[in-house]
Amino acid sequence: MLNQFKFVTGNPNKVREASEILDLTLESVQVDGLFEIQSPDIDAVIRHKAEQAHSILQCPVMVEDSGLVFHAWNGLPGALVKWFEETVSCEGMLKMLEGFDDRGATAICCFAVYDGKNMKIARGKVKGSLSSNIRGSNGFGWDVIFIPEGYKQTYGEMSPRGKNAISHRKRALDKLKQELNKAL
Amino acid sequence: MLNQFKFVTGNPNKVREASEILDLTLESVQVDGLFEIQSPDIDAVIRHKAEQAHSILQCPVMVEDSGLVFHAWNGLPGALVKWFEETVSCEGMLKMLEGFDDRGATAICCFAVYDGKNMKIARGKVKGSLSSNIRGSNGFGWDVIFIPEGYKQTYGEMSPRGKNAISHRKRALDKLKQELNKAL
Repeated sequence: MLNQFKFVTGNPNKVREASEILDLTLESVQVDGLFEIQSPDIDAVIRHKAEQAHSILQCPVMVEDSGLVFHAWNGLPGALVKWFEETVSCEGMLKMLEGFDDRGATAICCFAVYDGKNMKIARGKVKGSLSSNIRGSNGFGWDVIFIPEGYKQTYGEMSPRGKNAISHRKRALDKLKQELNKAL
Repeated sequence: MLNQFKFVTGNPNKVREASEILDLTLESVQVDGLFEIQSPDIDAVIRHKAEQAHSILQCPVMVEDSGLVFHAWNGLPGALVKWFEETVSCEGMLKMLEGFDDRGATAICCFAVYDGKNMKIARGKVKGSLSSNIRGSNGFGWDVIFIPEGYKQTYGEMSPRGKNAISHRKRALDKLKQELNKAL
């Protein structure tokens, strides 16, 4: 069942990562005019995105959204982290956090598979903390500032295989597989 | 012509302020299920909002969006400022800015009137700076941290009449009036 839908994303990094974790070739499609609603709440963003993608493509779809919640910031940046990256970059985020004592963060990934009737949502979370500077050159986005709990490296300092074995996206995809298997 | 459309907003503060500036009673309506797209770019947000509101209500609509750009943050929070208010509050925004030298900010307001064919967009901008602490109790949102250029008070320390005479919203509404008069 896992390859009976299209993965709707314009981010080739996410396709590569999900394909590596699921160990299959995902069919991906970029949909122009797909809007993400304004909210740091990933669940709200993903439901709207799944409905919209299905309505445009008229076929079963998989959508993904992820985010990074800084504990000191009460929900921010959350799903809005991509706008922080585009404007202030990861360096800027760390600078904005300087005045706060709590450097804790939670990485969240959420997948939804929607066929027009049923929506399966799977979430994966990884607690961790924010590094004091940019570290590593692997991964993408905010991987270079997030240190998962129990590790000393940022995601960006881990090999793709190392990160994908423990990441928030891995946890979400594992749950999604279980959900989809239940539905068979 | 100014009262031949509905002002689509769920924010009574904005209705009151626009009514005061335009000196007329605006018919306002709150639309459930109206989503704002995810972007700090106010122009992108407002176009989508106008089209969506018209599509739901099937009548001429006026929509508004405003934001506050911190010069040190390259576009942030912009139209996303409401989420900053909801999560970290104005105090948090000032704390996030502590490590930056540039305390400049620009207040932006954007109105769009859309009848299904033509879209009139009017923008108003006010340059200023961010106070070092919360000041004043008038206004709403981030009024208590924004000091317009040429003044020593924050918006929140001004009387409603004082603020409305010089605000980004006043400038946008003045332009909107001109635009609508041209169209008559």
